[in-house]
Amino acid sequence: MTESVRRVRIDLAYDGTDFFGWQVQPGKRTAQGAVEEALARIEGNRPVRVRGASRTDAGVHARGQVADAEVTTRLDDEALLDRLAGILPDDLRPVRLRTVDPAFHSRKHAIAKTYRYGIDRSPQGDPLLFRYALHVRRLPDREAMEAALRLLPGRRDWAGFAGAASEVEDTVRTLTVARYDDLASGHAAFTFEADGFLNHMVRNLVGTLLDVARGRFEAERVSRVLESGDRTLAGPTAPARALCLERVRYADDGVA
Amino acid sequence: MTESVRRVRIDLAYDGTDFFGWQVQPGKRTAQGAVEEALARIEGNRPVRVRGASRTDAGVHARGQVADAEVTTRLDDEALLDRLAGILPDDLRPVRLRTVDPAFHSRKHAIAKTYRYGIDRSPQGDPLLFRYALHVRRLPDREAMEAALRLLPGRRDWAGFAGAASEVEDTVRTLTVARYDDLASGHAAFTFEADGFLNHMVRNLVGTLLDVARGRFEAERVSRVLESGDRTLAGPTAPARALCLERVRYADDGVA
Repeated sequence: MTESVRRVRIDLAYDGTDFFGWQVQPGKRTAQGAVEEALARIEGNRPVRVRGASRTDAGVHARGQVADAEVTTRLDDEALLDRLAGILPDDLRPVRLRTVDPAFHSRKHAIAKTYRYGIDRSPQGDPLLFRYALHVRRLPDREAMEAALRLLPGRRDWAGFAGAASEVEDTVRTLTVARYDDLASGHAAFTFEADGFLNHMVRNLVGTLLDVARGRFEAERVSRVLESGDRTLAGPTAPARALCLERVRYADDGVA
Repeated sequence: MTESVRRVRIDLAYDGTDFFGWQVQPGKRTAQGAVEEALARIEGNRPVRVRGASRTDAGVHARGQVADAEVTTRLDDEALLDRLAGILPDDLRPVRLRTVDPAFHSRKHAIAKTYRYGIDRSPQGDPLLFRYALHVRRLPDREAMEAALRLLPGRRDWAGFAGAASEVEDTVRTLTVARYDDLASGHAAFTFEADGFLNHMVRNLVGTLLDVARGRFEAERVSRVLESGDRTLAGPTAPARALCLERVRYADDGVA
């Protein structure tokens, strides 16, 4: 019996509340671990390695995580998606599944990622939103925050906004979008798009921008953090639970 | 020192996921219990009894629960709301607080309640919605369901849709609204309004209506359940987590 090997791209959405992030960790419930276990089951207990575009932190959500894996099952893409959907839990859903070029690599081939950070502007906090947004009652100096946002886009060294535990050597990234938008019924969100993000970068940016909006920092503080690379000048790391990986883009969709 | 006693109406919203419902139960985290404890703290550890318009079940959410309590604090309404907001957790928020007529009774004076039952129509289920909606991939016989919905409004005996544990003797209620609406981006919801609801009534209605939509029952089944009062003819009780108490109405707002 000959086996046909193929690589599939799996687009995933998850509620990060009950996951210890994307990456497999022994004894912890992770999104990568759950997808690997589900695929192994479909593959008759053959271990399957799943790669993800972004290693989202514990508590961070995703609407558009992209993963890829090599599979041998004879199920076609649609049937494999249905099997996977039948195994994965309510808080981790496969959105789309396609056979792609065998060389496709969800992390290495990503050209842009979009993150959204939810802000709840309701007066007392919306309890049906607290798992997905940070309640910020007052933003007295919103104009300064908007000015700070305008200082961000460009190709820069983001070391000053990286998490202390970051081990990446090259901290230069190109940020293409940095926005704050009012949405429906008292909700708002920051949106950031870049060719890549450092560990904790979005949460450190949001923490600093909110401190600017609260009048604790001047807008120019973000330039000082960027120029100095000094993390101690940045604001606090905003909580993980309001962050969501919205989308990962590729030059082509990797379709075979 | 004279104390001034007054009755306040407190409008509340909560995420029911981590509550054992509204009503106080020894050793359990309940919404009523949390509000009573918070008010007792504000009142210098004087026990405070809080009445609620609706005894929502474990897991059921609320955007518009109404409660009332007698307080002696000298804080005015705005300051009391802020104190309460500072004590209550992220998943239980006071939305509004007003001094009302001393005779106001949030449950007895309610003239109508509106419940919403969330349905997730996305192909694989939206993980960022699973705490608030039931995923229903296919509704092949939606027209039969719409026909069944049209049979519901009116003053009727709802015994056939009451929970088995229901102890209420008078099971006659007037249902004024029974609707199913498509909302934005693959979401939908049932809406029911009545002068009162029996225990599990909305969830039993939804379970039966979904069975009609799936072609398991004819639309006329709801008439048979109503006429016979026979619970065994109704569909299954739909899960609690997609149900939300949206609003409670009063003839006047009870304002003093």
